[in-house]
Amino acid sequence: MASLDPGIGEKFSHRTQRAINHDGTFNVRRRSKRIRHDPYQRLILMTWTRFFAELGLLLVVINATFALSYMALGLQNLPGVVASRNWGQNFLSALFFSVQTFTSVGYGHVYPGSNGAGALSSVEALVGVLTFALATGLLYGRFSRPVARIQFSRIAIISRRPGTGGPCLQFRVANRRDNTLVDVSARVIVKFVDPVTLNFSYAALSLEREAVSLLPLTWTLVHDLTPGSPLHGLGPADYEARNVEIIVLLKSYDDTFAQDVHARNSYIHSEILWNRRFIRAYEVEDDGITVVDLDALDATDPLDEANER
Amino acid sequence: MASLDPGIGEKFSHRTQRAINHDGTFNVRRRSKRIRHDPYQRLILMTWTRFFAELGLLLVVINATFALSYMALGLQNLPGVVASRNWGQNFLSALFFSVQTFTSVGYGHVYPGSNGAGALSSVEALVGVLTFALATGLLYGRFSRPVARIQFSRIAIISRRPGTGGPCLQFRVANRRDNTLVDVSARVIVKFVDPVTLNFSYAALSLEREAVSLLPLTWTLVHDLTPGSPLHGLGPADYEARNVEIIVLLKSYDDTFAQDVHARNSYIHSEILWNRRFIRAYEVEDDGITVVDLDALDATDPLDEANER
Amino acid sequence: MASLDPGIGEKFSHRTQRAINHDGTFNVRRRSKRIRHDPYQRLILMTWTRFFAELGLLLVVINATFALSYMALGLQNLPGVVASRNWGQNFLSALFFSVQTFTSVGYGHVYPGSNGAGALSSVEALVGVLTFALATGLLYGRFSRPVARIQFSRIAIISRRPGTGGPCLQFRVANRRDNTLVDVSARVIVKFVDPVTLNFSYAALSLEREAVSLLPLTWTLVHDLTPGSPLHGLGPADYEARNVEIIVLLKSYDDTFAQDVHARNSYIHSEILWNRRFIRAYEVEDDGITVVDLDALDATDPLDEANER
Amino acid sequence: MASLDPGIGEKFSHRTQRAINHDGTFNVRRRSKRIRHDPYQRLILMTWTRFFAELGLLLVVINATFALSYMALGLQNLPGVVASRNWGQNFLSALFFSVQTFTSVGYGHVYPGSNGAGALSSVEALVGVLTFALATGLLYGRFSRPVARIQFSRIAIISRRPGTGGPCLQFRVANRRDNTLVDVSARVIVKFVDPVTLNFSYAALSLEREAVSLLPLTWTLVHDLTPGSPLHGLGPADYEARNVEIIVLLKSYDDTFAQDVHARNSYIHSEILWNRRFIRAYEVEDDGITVVDLDALDATDPLDEANER
Repeated sequence: MASLDPGIGEKFSHRTQRAINHDGTFNVRRRSKRIRHDPYQRLILMTWTRFFAELGLLLVVINATFALSYMALGLQNLPGVVASRNWGQNFLSALFFSVQTFTSVGYGHVYPGSNGAGALSSVEALVGVLTFALATGLLYGRFSRPVARIQFSRIAIISRRPGTGGPCLQFRVANRRDNTLVDVSARVIVKFVDPVTLNFSYAALSLEREAVSLLPLTWTLVHDLTPGSPLHGLGPADYEARNVEIIVLLKSYDDTFAQDVHARNSYIHSEILWNRRFIRAYEVEDDGITVVDLDALDATDPLDEANER
Repeated sequence: MASLDPGIGEKFSHRTQRAINHDGTFNVRRRSKRIRHDPYQRLILMTWTRFFAELGLLLVVINATFALSYMALGLQNLPGVVASRNWGQNFLSALFFSVQTFTSVGYGHVYPGSNGAGALSSVEALVGVLTFALATGLLYGRFSRPVARIQFSRIAIISRRPGTGGPCLQFRVANRRDNTLVDVSARVIVKFVDPVTLNFSYAALSLEREAVSLLPLTWTLVHDLTPGSPLHGLGPADYEARNVEIIVLLKSYDDTFAQDVHARNSYIHSEILWNRRFIRAYEVEDDGITVVDLDALDATDPLDEANER
Repeated sequence: MASLDPGIGEKFSHRTQRAINHDGTFNVRRRSKRIRHDPYQRLILMTWTRFFAELGLLLVVINATFALSYMALGLQNLPGVVASRNWGQNFLSALFFSVQTFTSVGYGHVYPGSNGAGALSSVEALVGVLTFALATGLLYGRFSRPVARIQFSRIAIISRRPGTGGPCLQFRVANRRDNTLVDVSARVIVKFVDPVTLNFSYAALSLEREAVSLLPLTWTLVHDLTPGSPLHGLGPADYEARNVEIIVLLKSYDDTFAQDVHARNSYIHSEILWNRRFIRAYEVEDDGITVVDLDALDATDPLDEANER
Repeated sequence: MASLDPGIGEKFSHRTQRAINHDGTFNVRRRSKRIRHDPYQRLILMTWTRFFAELGLLLVVINATFALSYMALGLQNLPGVVASRNWGQNFLSALFFSVQTFTSVGYGHVYPGSNGAGALSSVEALVGVLTFALATGLLYGRFSRPVARIQFSRIAIISRRPGTGGPCLQFRVANRRDNTLVDVSARVIVKFVDPVTLNFSYAALSLEREAVSLLPLTWTLVHDLTPGSPLHGLGPADYEARNVEIIVLLKSYDDTFAQDVHARNSYIHSEILWNRRFIRAYEVEDDGITVVDLDALDATDPLDEANER
């Protein structure tokens, strides 16, 4: 049992939320007086909207600061600027000069006309070029991070084996992108309240097939609910009472990025449907090309109606 | 059998095209209302011609848009431009100023002479620097993606073992580039129509040798058509009737990029020659250097004529 | 035994310092007449403070050198500069022009007015752009290097098994960052003076659990001090006399960077506490989120007081 | 035997040079009508001197080409240039303007004064920015490529086991850099002329220890020349007659680059010394730090004189 512990801890109380969210993150916070935040990780993981918002804000703050500095020096240090009585107009003039310096455009109709302005604009030009060097690295880092866009079926099902009729737990995955995933392997762990100790326990769930070489279509993962399974003989009420959470860890190799990628998901009792059967989610079209319908990944039939499809 | 399924699906109809094309892509389409296209992947995988065409188009569109914006503001906002009655001439003047701003050249014979032009040109200068930051990352991403240029022989052959005379399936691979491939390993899967169920089946084909440490010359992969082989006893007509497709998955470590690389290929019945023997594709020249002739990778002899070479 | 040698050498004298420092580096120096220093590695591994200090110094040196070159040519080659009798003023004027050229700002109120100044400023402009290309690469390389911020407990403890009461060596680890560590595995080696040969010996210490799938909370690594253990039967005085050093090698996969990361640490006799028990370092808060207190990673109780927690 | 073939081919004639050079490259050429050269690989692998020479040449050629184009348009299109009767002076003026445009300095004392010059300078400015984007990527690619600087002893030796006196083949490796190599593993293959078939044969040589966890000092690789060894019972003359080449493949994980690195080397008969013993190449200094002397990696004693060191 020990080797099955996914490292999530064994003594959670009943009040805990699910261990793993649908986006693969954990319901865990970290606290420390000496904690070190990693700005790169934050800037890489945030959404594109937020990234450009923060980048835009940074550019505005830097340029406004330099603009105010030029005003503090006095606009007479910037020949070409027509000083105005209007503070706002003066600020705009200084700001435009700042941007022209920061981006190294430097038209030259305004230029630094004193040692002070020369020094300040020199510093700004260097800061500008280095800022864009940083932005270049961040943009590339964001773009080039391999992310597995594995789509998990939103529900798992309790189904039956076609031949033997034996009960089994099933869920499906597919690749949402057109890249090629190679050597996709899965581990499934169940987390549940032990009815004896009332502590959380973990157990591995064996799979009919633990890996596929390629994943161009869909892959249905199957765990047989045989007597050896930790879920053997449990009904829907047991799943809820024991806070069952099926944790899935997927690993693959991404052909576009030439790197390993990982994906995680979990199913709690309310996301497990009983006595259902998955409907095939791909078909061959007239031109001989197989088409995968990702929206049909969750499609199931009741077991009773399930005739030969 | 289950563990051999490459994840390509088991119920393709007879009409399906080959599973894997010669460039390693699949004959699969993906469909979803919420599908997420990955622009990075698209920009990394397209050809260089198309990449520079799309980049050029983007640069033209951005600069033309800014040029039209300057014209909408009025060219009197751009001192140094001699306004003309000719719309085309005015557009060109605005376009040249736009490019000078976008690339941060900023000669200054034309410059923003109003708050509106100052603001617009500030935005354009920032957009320009960020665009080139993106282009830098994309160019690097395209360059640095490790791609295995494994050359597969265009044909596989049914040959005989030199000693025992036992029949075997063979094909050859070589490295088309001068980099060093380390730890090259292969998996071969056959996809065929099961004569009983009429469904597609998959089976692994064992190899005489599944990996080589280095691949400076050529490597001939050999599958013995012994009674244990799923292809045992089949003739050319059977290969066609059963839609046999030999799927090859190659994995290696690329010494230049310090990353794993993968290559795929497949052979269908019309690409399998019977009773042939591969001719050696390398020779030692007078200076003691071994020369690999990649054009001779497909060269075969009829088995009858095959004397000791 | 041979296969356990971590490659640190077998004949250290008694005077040696610990093999591995707390930051994971070795107490080893390298000496060679033809040693090749790797500037990239140095620039990647130094602190950010030092990196920006060295970068700033480099920029100053380059620009000052070009400024002195322009002065050597004669400032009459730079129309727009008002030559002064004050050497310092002339140097500043040349320096500002240099920075404007190096950063490609090029306002143009000063410009190269002769072939000599044209050539020199052309070279400087190219040097400038290439310098920032290098800086871009270095900034990205520093940012994107995956570093495991595994926090090791500062002390290891000799504790007892809850059930059997058997003695065991324990220490704890946690992830200091919010990224996800997958497949964390550990190897533990003990280095000690062999009481017979008086040479240093190495031996692997078996672990109750050698790997966890995920590490969101804490992980306590346990080595049972059973008769098979090389530390069996030793007391605190023996640990000191034999210069015992517990060397820990951790390996994991970092989900943010999609790369493997490694961490190292070691415990010497003065960092091993006897008859203690670790206090749990995480708890579930009212919102159901589990909180890890990294500052409590070292928290222990005496064994006697250790009741059910 | 089959699985030992390093893929180097089995039918080399006697005239062949060594298979692997000391820099890890192969003595192999590739020939094909449709061979695809990989410019990135060439630009990444060439020396720094050659890289900067080719980059410099490219910059000169591009700028000279644009300079000649401006001259073809007529220098009257570039206000600020004083046209001269001297072709060389005109070329220099056009060249300086070209560099100012290409690097986006754009002082503006010379500027494009016609549609033709505006278009040409717009194209040059875009080409310039993209060229430096490419250079940025290449510089980063060159810097960040992990290279194992494993130093192999220049000679291998035939020595004797301290205890049993059994003969063995030995050679040593050390890390030439201050980075940390983790999980260093080795494979050794011998290539020799089979005295029966007169073809080249390959055989793996077993190692006393095939891997070390860390490599801070030196590692001596030992192959016992027991009856099972393909080299058993051979003397120096046999090594020469059979063209013996000991091929070494080393693999490791580089902690700085977080990537696997590989190194190769080989020893031919003239690089194998008989009846020698390696002298220890590190010592502990007074401050307790261990110092590795890389220049002493090849240092050996005759076996007779080898007393306890």
